[in-house]
Amino acid sequence: MNAPIGVFDSGVGGLTVVKEIMRQLPGENLVYFGDTARVPYGSKSKNTVCKYSKQIVRFLQTKQVKAIVIACNTASALALDEIREEIDIPVMGVVEPGAMMAANTTRTNNIGIIGTESTIKSGIYNKFLHKINPDITVVSKACPLFVPLVEEGLWEDRVTEDIVGRYLHELKEYEIDALILGCTHYPLLRRVIGQEIGEDVKLVNPAYETAKSLKLLLGEKNLLNTMSIEEHEPTYDYFVSDGVDKFISFADDVLSCHVDHAEIVDIESY
Amino acid sequence: MNAPIGVFDSGVGGLTVVKEIMRQLPGENLVYFGDTARVPYGSKSKNTVCKYSKQIVRFLQTKQVKAIVIACNTASALALDEIREEIDIPVMGVVEPGAMMAANTTRTNNIGIIGTESTIKSGIYNKFLHKINPDITVVSKACPLFVPLVEEGLWEDRVTEDIVGRYLHELKEYEIDALILGCTHYPLLRRVIGQEIGEDVKLVNPAYETAKSLKLLLGEKNLLNTMSIEEHEPTYDYFVSDGVDKFISFADDVLSCHVDHAEIVDIESY
Repeated sequence: MNAPIGVFDSGVGGLTVVKEIMRQLPGENLVYFGDTARVPYGSKSKNTVCKYSKQIVRFLQTKQVKAIVIACNTASALALDEIREEIDIPVMGVVEPGAMMAANTTRTNNIGIIGTESTIKSGIYNKFLHKINPDITVVSKACPLFVPLVEEGLWEDRVTEDIVGRYLHELKEYEIDALILGCTHYPLLRRVIGQEIGEDVKLVNPAYETAKSLKLLLGEKNLLNTMSIEEHEPTYDYFVSDGVDKFISFADDVLSCHVDHAEIVDIESY
Repeated sequence: MNAPIGVFDSGVGGLTVVKEIMRQLPGENLVYFGDTARVPYGSKSKNTVCKYSKQIVRFLQTKQVKAIVIACNTASALALDEIREEIDIPVMGVVEPGAMMAANTTRTNNIGIIGTESTIKSGIYNKFLHKINPDITVVSKACPLFVPLVEEGLWEDRVTEDIVGRYLHELKEYEIDALILGCTHYPLLRRVIGQEIGEDVKLVNPAYETAKSLKLLLGEKNLLNTMSIEEHEPTYDYFVSDGVDKFISFADDVLSCHVDHAEIVDIESY
């Protein structure tokens, strides 16, 4: 099926999920929307995140998407159920695939989760993990400074090491052996986080797991694009609610994700 | 005149301006709007900030305000002119009073400005300063990590000292003797900033200067509330676009500004 897959995020971070989808599903067409005008979602209430997410879903539907991936952990945590009630096409968040991987990995049954304030407060990872295995102990910690530090480019800085050390300090008191990086920006801090938490702890990147699950899901539903890459060049269309130039340069510089064109959408009108 | 003064900001930071107005104009009624759903403005484009600001002005007009204070540096920088064109009541931003004070203070004619990315990129402080005195040299620096650090409560932390040191490093190469704290959150870092930049540099807080200018302006226009505080208890009404509880606790804990009630407004509908 040639229709594109819709992917959305509160901003530019969701491009990490796009990159994984491109890698694992190289024949698929993609439409990306980044809500750069209203970013970040991580400190907003459930009501507001649901309202914004539904506007975006309505916009993506005008692009005839065959499935939607919510690349934002916060929107996955707060809006997935409401969106599924509203539309008929498959909708996937990043939380479930990440939780599944962590649950399959752990031997101590102690799993750590780091994310934005809203993702952590939602308790959504706990919910999924306990559905998979009620014996799992979940230790969670909000890390509000990680996104600004990544956006300032301080990925391997002494200040970042200091802050990572403080946020992860509590987690280290539990015997976790898997840590879910519950925000699209966090994999960029992977080295510092790994150093701090220790090499015995597996870092789970929901972007990677989501692309894997998406491939399975599209296969099951007979929605995979069956044209070979030789027959067609896949199309990637990018839309944002603000700041095209900033979006493009951030995608290039920070995420090494080449975007040559993006269009502004008046998202409040959807 | 009993009508209230409208004050708005991208979030909670504008309450620092409210506090100054309460102190310097204790007889005035106030209506505050904080755009907590769409905060921060500092990384958004001019178009988006203008659109959001105009929605807020339309909301404030439904409260019959007699004047409007834009407590947000970014919105003052990007939207003041457009708002003034649209409405008849006096509108004041925080930029002009801050610039005026700095220009009156400096002896070296070298003035530093720190603020959000959008405020700095707008060049608005330069414009006002050069209008006052074309000989002034303006040195400006965006400090994107200051707001998240303040919001994490790290006002006097070693990490904050480290980051402040890096941001102000360049400014120290110029002989500035006045530094404008061009963002509502920055006065909370006053001690660390002062330590880093040196005691010979006067720190200018636009919130304080704005309240002073507002008093003068209302006097000139015959708009001061002439009822004495003995005759009436002034009313303070607070509105936000998201997260009432978070707004109230931040106001209390961080700004020591007591807010006992706030109401949610669907600001996109204005």
